[in-house]
Amino acid sequence: MMTTSEKVGSNIRKANAEAIRRILEAKPVLIDVVPASEAIPALQEGMILHAGPPIDWGNMCGPMRGAVTGIAVFEGWATDLAEAEQLAESGAFSLNPNHDFGAVGPMTGMTTLSQPVLVVENRASGNHAFCTINEGLGKVMRFGGNDASVLKRLGWLRDTLGPALGVALRAGKGIELKPLVARGLTMGDEMHQRNLGCSSLLLRTLAPDLARTVDDRTALAEMLSFIGSNDQFFLNLAMALGKAIMDPVCDIDCSSVVTAMTRNGTDFGIRVSGLGDEWFTAPVEMPEGLYFPGFSADDANPDMGDSTIVETIGLGGFAMAAAPAVAGFVGAGTPSIAADFTRTMGEITLTQNPEWTIPALDYQGVPTGIDIRLVVETGITPTINTGIAHRKPGIGQVGAGVVKAPLACFELALKALATRLGVR
Amino acid sequence: MMTTSEKVGSNIRKANAEAIRRILEAKPVLIDVVPASEAIPALQEGMILHAGPPIDWGNMCGPMRGAVTGIAVFEGWATDLAEAEQLAESGAFSLNPNHDFGAVGPMTGMTTLSQPVLVVENRASGNHAFCTINEGLGKVMRFGGNDASVLKRLGWLRDTLGPALGVALRAGKGIELKPLVARGLTMGDEMHQRNLGCSSLLLRTLAPDLARTVDDRTALAEMLSFIGSNDQFFLNLAMALGKAIMDPVCDIDCSSVVTAMTRNGTDFGIRVSGLGDEWFTAPVEMPEGLYFPGFSADDANPDMGDSTIVETIGLGGFAMAAAPAVAGFVGAGTPSIAADFTRTMGEITLTQNPEWTIPALDYQGVPTGIDIRLVVETGITPTINTGIAHRKPGIGQVGAGVVKAPLACFELALKALATRLGVR
Repeated sequence: MMTTSEKVGSNIRKANAEAIRRILEAKPVLIDVVPASEAIPALQEGMILHAGPPIDWGNMCGPMRGAVTGIAVFEGWATDLAEAEQLAESGAFSLNPNHDFGAVGPMTGMTTLSQPVLVVENRASGNHAFCTINEGLGKVMRFGGNDASVLKRLGWLRDTLGPALGVALRAGKGIELKPLVARGLTMGDEMHQRNLGCSSLLLRTLAPDLARTVDDRTALAEMLSFIGSNDQFFLNLAMALGKAIMDPVCDIDCSSVVTAMTRNGTDFGIRVSGLGDEWFTAPVEMPEGLYFPGFSADDANPDMGDSTIVETIGLGGFAMAAAPAVAGFVGAGTPSIAADFTRTMGEITLTQNPEWTIPALDYQGVPTGIDIRLVVETGITPTINTGIAHRKPGIGQVGAGVVKAPLACFELALKALATRLGVR
Repeated sequence: MMTTSEKVGSNIRKANAEAIRRILEAKPVLIDVVPASEAIPALQEGMILHAGPPIDWGNMCGPMRGAVTGIAVFEGWATDLAEAEQLAESGAFSLNPNHDFGAVGPMTGMTTLSQPVLVVENRASGNHAFCTINEGLGKVMRFGGNDASVLKRLGWLRDTLGPALGVALRAGKGIELKPLVARGLTMGDEMHQRNLGCSSLLLRTLAPDLARTVDDRTALAEMLSFIGSNDQFFLNLAMALGKAIMDPVCDIDCSSVVTAMTRNGTDFGIRVSGLGDEWFTAPVEMPEGLYFPGFSADDANPDMGDSTIVETIGLGGFAMAAAPAVAGFVGAGTPSIAADFTRTMGEITLTQNPEWTIPALDYQGVPTGIDIRLVVETGITPTINTGIAHRKPGIGQVGAGVVKAPLACFELALKALATRLGVR
């Protein structure tokens, strides 16, 4: 007869095996681009979805505040940033995490009703996940930008690119994303700070359908140029695919597998399969990295964004070995060190993904299925490749780096799981 | 006072330094696509340029014969393959190497007057180099295919894609190719058997200009789809850029640097800077590699094509370390072995190219400037990544592999150089 401890251990193993099965058998497909209001019917006027675990205006960091005021002007809820700030102070906006609405957003992660969102369907489970369209580099809302140029671009995404992508995608059978990511891993992408391969592959997949469905040639050229000049275009799609894969893993009793990791610029939060939608949070850390000319660590905001969903599925920092060129970009060191990151993440994960392999590691699969028990036992926390925003609103990206998830989240979650399972 | 031997050595060193300078300072730019008759005014009716050193009909291998008869039908010089073969037997066609006309061609390498060619300008030297447009995979003329489907595709390239690319390119400032190759090396390409990254980057560069200049949306979609579904589309451009880089290196007195390596399916030939346009040939070897389902080494034709120009500039087999995924495809072994190929090629080259670096080797440049003295001294001959054609005409590609350049070419060339410089 099994002891209580053995029985709990056995239950966790079974639950985690089911979690891994759902992760590996997921079949994410890009099927559409629609206004967020259509994708997420709960979205209403004055409602703003943001990156990370829940946070109120008073605790929001500079770039997040910049984005909130900017998106309020964009949606026509305020005539200018000053008025938007007053409204935010007065509690006029309903602020909610993207994660609670099947959505994810990079950095500040603003999702509001008129913005177009990429729709990824997980054909193994039937669920959908959403993410806005990547704005490109420079001064952009996800990094806290909110001036006229930022809002103009968002308007073009809403009025031109979003609808066109929707028409083009609905004309086809959808784009299977797992094979695309698999090729990206052979092209130096890790799908967080480097998406050059997948962005290029996505464009070549989309271009013929866009050509068939867009009447205005100048607009078509502009769209192809916008997508083609943004090496990070695929990032938002990688995030939606991550959310589409992990949402069906969110409610497996006894499972110790992490289903979400995310940051709001103030707190880092995780969710764990056996603990449903409860957030376990700790203060977010500061990335270590390289800064664009004219900026330094003094300008940096702490870590931010839902993009950590890609690490949750074994990409980003977990797949660093696939992307030796990113190691330098994020200041992690030489390419040979890149492989060490991936190997270390193997110590806190339950399996390797046989469909997503890394040529440089002789086709070893990316480390997949973060187990909070392994994190707490080893003290090794997930490595995250991240962009760095200026800490003040309205400025934008100042660098890129590597950051560790704070151990405290995992310790809190493990205690909660132990309590739930009736063990200490 | 220097001895004769010291003086010769010094002259060779100076000459080779100049060869390396010309290679590294070359500035190849894709500027146009025009009919071969316009690019190469010497081309006439009945004249066929082929891959490799000179060869007559009687000595041509099966796929080369298949391509000659096919292109004769395509050009309207014969009504069918049987008539084309009779004409070829009777000496009706003028057969000449591409290399003598500023051109290169993959595998059989057919270049005739009505085919469109990519035009690469070397802006450091002002010379131009040409290569036809890649036909895609499967049954294609470069692998000896010559049926109606092959000729139909060539007709579409001549009548639709070629002219459209010309218009789109002339509307812009040209596409600088060195930075493109540099990015490709960070995306797992070695630019011979793997061109996925560069083909995708090229498409995203061309797509907006094509959208602006092509009126017919269906035709535009077809072009974008053709380019986007051919992972080897960039190969022919890599070859033209190689030829554009090496042609200005062809006449440096005393230099022992290889300026061309090429094969006609029967002979392997090299040219050496200090020996001008003289060919040094030896029987070509059989690639070792992997075969497509249904084919084996019994079906294979010996090594063929001008594509070895990419190894001549440090890519292909020389850059294997950049392309771990290709190591498996060509049957060379595991990704870790890929790096060994690049290191070994370092033993027969004079320098590394600082603009073309390999992330996995901590940004070491590709081995560049093959010195025939080093080849003969070490007995190490260039490693070439290659496609494998069926030995019979009309069938096509049956696999991919690795082949060594035959040592005898280099020994012959070294003897000739020694004679010319008055040493034994």
